[in-house]
Amino acid sequence: MEFRDQAIAARAAAVELATLRRSQKDAALNAMADSLAAAESELLEANAVDVARAREAGTEESIVDRLSLNPDRIRGMVQGLRDLAALPDPVGDVVRGWKLGNGVSVTQVRVPFGVVGIIYEARPNVTADAAGICLKSGNAALLRGSSSALQTNRVTVEALRRGLKDAGVTEDAVHLIEGDRDATTELMRARGLVDVLIPRGGAGLIQAVVDGSTVPVIETGTGNCHIYVDADADVDQALAILLNAKTQRPSVCNAAETLLVHSAAAPDFLPRALSALRQAGVTVHGDSATAGYGEGVVPARPDEYDAEYLTLDLAAKVVGSMDEALQHIREHTTGHSETIVTRSRSAADRFVAEVDAAAVLVNASSRFVDGGEFGFGAEIGISTQKLHARGPMGLQEMTSSKYVVEGDGQVRS
Amino acid sequence: MEFRDQAIAARAAAVELATLRRSQKDAALNAMADSLAAAESELLEANAVDVARAREAGTEESIVDRLSLNPDRIRGMVQGLRDLAALPDPVGDVVRGWKLGNGVSVTQVRVPFGVVGIIYEARPNVTADAAGICLKSGNAALLRGSSSALQTNRVTVEALRRGLKDAGVTEDAVHLIEGDRDATTELMRARGLVDVLIPRGGAGLIQAVVDGSTVPVIETGTGNCHIYVDADADVDQALAILLNAKTQRPSVCNAAETLLVHSAAAPDFLPRALSALRQAGVTVHGDSATAGYGEGVVPARPDEYDAEYLTLDLAAKVVGSMDEALQHIREHTTGHSETIVTRSRSAADRFVAEVDAAAVLVNASSRFVDGGEFGFGAEIGISTQKLHARGPMGLQEMTSSKYVVEGDGQVRS
Repeated sequence: MEFRDQAIAARAAAVELATLRRSQKDAALNAMADSLAAAESELLEANAVDVARAREAGTEESIVDRLSLNPDRIRGMVQGLRDLAALPDPVGDVVRGWKLGNGVSVTQVRVPFGVVGIIYEARPNVTADAAGICLKSGNAALLRGSSSALQTNRVTVEALRRGLKDAGVTEDAVHLIEGDRDATTELMRARGLVDVLIPRGGAGLIQAVVDGSTVPVIETGTGNCHIYVDADADVDQALAILLNAKTQRPSVCNAAETLLVHSAAAPDFLPRALSALRQAGVTVHGDSATAGYGEGVVPARPDEYDAEYLTLDLAAKVVGSMDEALQHIREHTTGHSETIVTRSRSAADRFVAEVDAAAVLVNASSRFVDGGEFGFGAEIGISTQKLHARGPMGLQEMTSSKYVVEGDGQVRS
Repeated sequence: MEFRDQAIAARAAAVELATLRRSQKDAALNAMADSLAAAESELLEANAVDVARAREAGTEESIVDRLSLNPDRIRGMVQGLRDLAALPDPVGDVVRGWKLGNGVSVTQVRVPFGVVGIIYEARPNVTADAAGICLKSGNAALLRGSSSALQTNRVTVEALRRGLKDAGVTEDAVHLIEGDRDATTELMRARGLVDVLIPRGGAGLIQAVVDGSTVPVIETGTGNCHIYVDADADVDQALAILLNAKTQRPSVCNAAETLLVHSAAAPDFLPRALSALRQAGVTVHGDSATAGYGEGVVPARPDEYDAEYLTLDLAAKVVGSMDEALQHIREHTTGHSETIVTRSRSAADRFVAEVDAAAVLVNASSRFVDGGEFGFGAEIGISTQKLHARGPMGLQEMTSSKYVVEGDGQVRS
């Protein structure tokens, strides 16, 4: 099918999806899970083709790894769909409601967006994951995966559609968008047919979607996450939080990328921190003040304070005051997650009030800024924009709302 | 000042505005009101210049009227600012909060967007209104008014800035963007400096902003609002609602534009409706079935079912079933406000579930879909998009949110 036909079919499907009951959606999710599990050998075969082609093309092994499926990863995709079935349905939730003086009642209820486009990179598990989240939130999904995962994505979407059919739900709830770059452009320009676009991937992909779309975009952004160790920090806490935020999983957007240390805390904190980071395999790119507190500090180029390394690298700087720390964060933040470590109430309060980011953390690791950790059960991404949703996006963030206004003949005077 | 300097000054002001207490903002709003009231003669003089120039340019008298100020209208602007001071402050409101299993607390709180751009047409009262709403919600405002109101807008913004200064709040909270079309383009492309753009005006303006912006836009859309008179309608109620929705104020977006009548209700309803509409000065543009029920029905061209007349004109059609009515609305809705008149619970429930619009009304006039009527106290516009805010936008809809995550040293395992 051409993109336009798929989008029109998805719009029609969205009408049906919007009125499905939770039990119908959960049955469909379980049927999708069954169908995906049954397609395991077919999936592995298709994935082997994608992987072989990627290797032939000289793709980096870390990307080949992200592209690869194995029985364990397939079980993860299947379980993800079953987990979605167990989550509450956000559609129909009453956000608020009240009565006007004339007795007219106003109720704001959650409704699906309609048609959601997802543009994403290599990882083929996103296909099942995004389709499931869209279905549970009552949205039709147009999935634009990476061409490197095409065979895997095809088999996945065919299996998901078979599951939908088995459950008596329209297969047009899920579409894989194929074709060259023009198809992506068409998707980005399909205002009126597509309600929301969510890019999932690296900074380049997200920027291209933000720049090129007329469809409203939810930006799932990059994270240059700062840790500010205040003059009043508990040094042990600061150390634990820094190591966790930097090294527990360096490749994700909520990992720490820049360390700011108050000069009053530096003599106690930095020697221990630099030694611990070195032992953990982290290369510190610091200013000269930082370098004075330990070995192995590489001089930081100015642009490194804007880097989202996603590796075992960390930019570091000693600041003379909290003002300087706030100013540095203001200039370099990507608006994801910013952390202060302090025992001072007033310092924490000021940091929370003045830092403009999706999440501001006090004495806790930024690795907690995650839909799973927040208890959302499912996450479509972490929004770094201010419109609609900011921070981890769960099922609730995949809905819009509608005002239902009910009377018995009232008119406006 | 050039646009870029204004935007940078507004960004700096936004940092200050985000941490103001309600009492400081209310004092500023009252000082802005005082200052505007004191500038009455200056305002009238400037407005006379704008009005004279508009008349010279041969502007339509209805637009000249919208451009014109008089002491009464100025009092309205002043009172609007005082009313805002009396409203609750949305900033700092806790949206929700919970504790993770490890004791970390997560709190989602409302915060300002930061810098809001408003692009609007002739009416100069929007200048004070939008500046006030932005200030109360903690946002800096970049106001791009119509060049036809330039003198009036200048004097207004100068007065508002004097008020801010009197109250000890940064004047850079409010800027008037001058210059030619390039300034508008700069505003629309200032992603990173401007957080949200809200166009207020006709369909052409809104379309241009939606198409040309890289800054996220909240679309305040057009209203092709339908009234569907069901087979089970109370004919008296239907008549009252139709007349109110069409004639009480035809020039606004929540006025009725299309009437759909179930064929079973037509014999009772349409003869009375057509006669009442004629008496009220409404021209009905109908299909042949409608024309059969009364005099003076003008044949409707197909494209009239997409018209937002904003005048005493109404498109009308007899439908054979509720399915046909729903299908017609699906094809022609602008997603603003759609009404059913019926005594049937199941018909009402189905209409509410299936119609995709910001507001769906049962047995009430669509004229209630309005921030003032909803009790919001202030309204920046009515959003017809699904992202962020849908329907009337009050102060709460002028905010984003932030997660505050607090612990005592917890790290992720």
